[in-house]
Amino acid sequence: MKPNFSLRLRVFNLNCWGIPYLSKQRADRMKRLGDFLNMESFDLALLEEVWSEQDFQYLRQKLSPTYPAAHYFRSGVIGSGLCVFSKHPIQELTQHVYSLNGYPYMIHHGDWFCGKAVGLLVLHLSGLVLNAYVTHLHAEYDRQKDIYLAHRVAQAWELAQFIHHTSKAADMVLLCGDLNMHPEDLGCCLLKEWTGLRDAYLETRDFKGSEEGNTMVPQNCYVNQQELEPFPLGIRIDYVLYKVVSGFYISCKTLETTTGHDPHRGTPLSDHEALMATLYVRHSPPQQNPSPVHGPAERSPLISVLREAWTELGLGMAQARWWATFTGYVIGLGLLLLALLCIVAAGGGAREAAILLWTPSVGLVLGGGVVYLFHMQEAKGLYRAQAELQHVLGRAREAQDVGLEPQPAPLLGQQEGDRAEEQ
Amino acid sequence: MKPNFSLRLRVFNLNCWGIPYLSKQRADRMKRLGDFLNMESFDLALLEEVWSEQDFQYLRQKLSPTYPAAHYFRSGVIGSGLCVFSKHPIQELTQHVYSLNGYPYMIHHGDWFCGKAVGLLVLHLSGLVLNAYVTHLHAEYDRQKDIYLAHRVAQAWELAQFIHHTSKAADMVLLCGDLNMHPEDLGCCLLKEWTGLRDAYLETRDFKGSEEGNTMVPQNCYVNQQELEPFPLGIRIDYVLYKVVSGFYISCKTLETTTGHDPHRGTPLSDHEALMATLYVRHSPPQQNPSPVHGPAERSPLISVLREAWTELGLGMAQARWWATFTGYVIGLGLLLLALLCIVAAGGGAREAAILLWTPSVGLVLGGGVVYLFHMQEAKGLYRAQAELQHVLGRAREAQDVGLEPQPAPLLGQQEGDRAEEQ
Repeated sequence: MKPNFSLRLRVFNLNCWGIPYLSKQRADRMKRLGDFLNMESFDLALLEEVWSEQDFQYLRQKLSPTYPAAHYFRSGVIGSGLCVFSKHPIQELTQHVYSLNGYPYMIHHGDWFCGKAVGLLVLHLSGLVLNAYVTHLHAEYDRQKDIYLAHRVAQAWELAQFIHHTSKAADMVLLCGDLNMHPEDLGCCLLKEWTGLRDAYLETRDFKGSEEGNTMVPQNCYVNQQELEPFPLGIRIDYVLYKVVSGFYISCKTLETTTGHDPHRGTPLSDHEALMATLYVRHSPPQQNPSPVHGPAERSPLISVLREAWTELGLGMAQARWWATFTGYVIGLGLLLLALLCIVAAGGGAREAAILLWTPSVGLVLGGGVVYLFHMQEAKGLYRAQAELQHVLGRAREAQDVGLEPQPAPLLGQQEGDRAEEQ
Repeated sequence: MKPNFSLRLRVFNLNCWGIPYLSKQRADRMKRLGDFLNMESFDLALLEEVWSEQDFQYLRQKLSPTYPAAHYFRSGVIGSGLCVFSKHPIQELTQHVYSLNGYPYMIHHGDWFCGKAVGLLVLHLSGLVLNAYVTHLHAEYDRQKDIYLAHRVAQAWELAQFIHHTSKAADMVLLCGDLNMHPEDLGCCLLKEWTGLRDAYLETRDFKGSEEGNTMVPQNCYVNQQELEPFPLGIRIDYVLYKVVSGFYISCKTLETTTGHDPHRGTPLSDHEALMATLYVRHSPPQQNPSPVHGPAERSPLISVLREAWTELGLGMAQARWWATFTGYVIGLGLLLLALLCIVAAGGGAREAAILLWTPSVGLVLGGGVVYLFHMQEAKGLYRAQAELQHVLGRAREAQDVGLEPQPAPLLGQQEGDRAEEQ
């Protein structure tokens, strides 16, 4: 790589709202999205909620001259809805499906059936290794009484761990997607603190778009206005996050969002707003002292967010265990009822009623059994995440005791660059 | 690190056969296992089938003076059964749960309920970064008609991908576990070819133990002799695999297995044999030409095994889709039956029979629905693995066309060392 190396990366992200039969004007929106992506010729287009593989195949065909590389991440019953289109060859790819993702019996919410996941692409751009991640976390249906909070925090932790462990040889990390979390939410802070990723909206020098960078805004005709009532300006739940390793400097030159319309002021491409970022990566000046720049005191936000997440997962675990116990009683009740019905039927009394009650009793036992198993699995999944957090907290405490930097996400690239800028 | 640096690593692996209520003399075996591990003081003890968390806690307490670090990997309904005990601090840890792991309705096999997984530990030993993995793949119940073959191949691929993507910054990689695959099996070849891991049994200079290194042998009193009838010497399904990156040289000085008894010739510790390896890592001499040593022609075993795995996953996918279609018909039949029963009951004819048939019809529809969803998910999971293989094959073909090395597992450490040895 040349010493005066500089890389420009143009990235597009959109939650496409592509639910077959349910999402309005899907075909037209996909067509216009394809036209726009072809016209703009981004380096990478990362999409969520492309639930129909036909839509992906349509886009793949349409975009193939501009974006020769594409991938659709398959998982769950329906699919993860994630796909990518790249102007550059994809060197490697894989995915991780979150172990917790809502409840199968919440059919009207449907998240469980999607198999929410994070997809990873490895690209080589001008000798620089870029790990690009695309994800979509569990939706938030009721912010006041969010029954999925523990699952979303666990997903954020799994996402952070997946990025942390798979990006160790990458020069640059990019994460795009619909996190279904506001910027100040626990999962969002956990993700950013553990991975060291920076928020393009907060970092950019030139922002154009919706107020406060919101990605669901009341101006969008597809948005459920009632849901946005508590947030008159909208909410910011879709993100472009990035970091580089030491030796590089990254800056977000421009970040743009759509504003409730498509980029040509027509009907919107989705119920979410699109994000378009232009990132610049270049070598940072050599460092005098290459030791980590954070001291233990500066890591306290990480420790505090780890603790908060640990508590939240504990609450989720208690809830999961409560449900497992409750369904255990339901199974017991169903078995008791079945035994009673058998006795009644054998005795010849109220035979028709006994036969009639057979179905709900069997249903009680079988349904209860499935729900019991599910919540046992849920508790195990939450416990797993909690144990990992506990381990990190333990290591952080040990490091603090000896006055060392506990974590390997020191964001050198950005900080060095900031200092270089100041000079 | 000093130039004449040398690291000795003593590793223990055992599938502990720790099924509560079912495994014979479990408590006694756990006690003796703990005594043995304390006496031998390995660097790392990696265990599988520790299904009861109480057993893990018992071992943790017993081993804490010798192995201060320990972790239990939780997943699924029952758990992954995986745990580790380490003499050295565990710097980082995480796990990946396989997305395919048998069928929930095969209750007598039970694998689905375990949530089979791979656990990862990152250790820092004398300045060397060691990624140690422990895993347990789906069991093989009938080698002639193995209905889980596609799942095991998909698991082997997920395992290989997890290792490949998480070990890029590691100096040394170690994988121990019960792969439930014979050395020549497709999944085993796929794993070794894609990751570049080497088999301690084939590499060691000094082997002591069972014939052909087998880890389930007829001499073991806990082994089901009938299952081993086609293999009079036993089978080798538990492994110690390893590799180092360029700049290091690794050798397996000794590999030992138990031989149907415990190490003191008493009753065995499990129905599997334990593996005990002593590995040496040292710097390799500097290379004259650091370019990859494999040419495209030499990568043909990888391409051939990728193709074979692709085909096997395709067969599994066809089978999954057949089951989804079949259960679709069953659901249709159940709905038809329900409609007929409603008409009969409403008309007043054969009312008791109609009510009696209500349960199996509802069961047919609900049960069919669950099985349908499961097989849809299975097909998606297999398709996902197949698409990843397809991508690797595509990249390999492109690399062959331009005469380049397609894959990043060139095993430089071992090969350099081998050449150094020859000099």
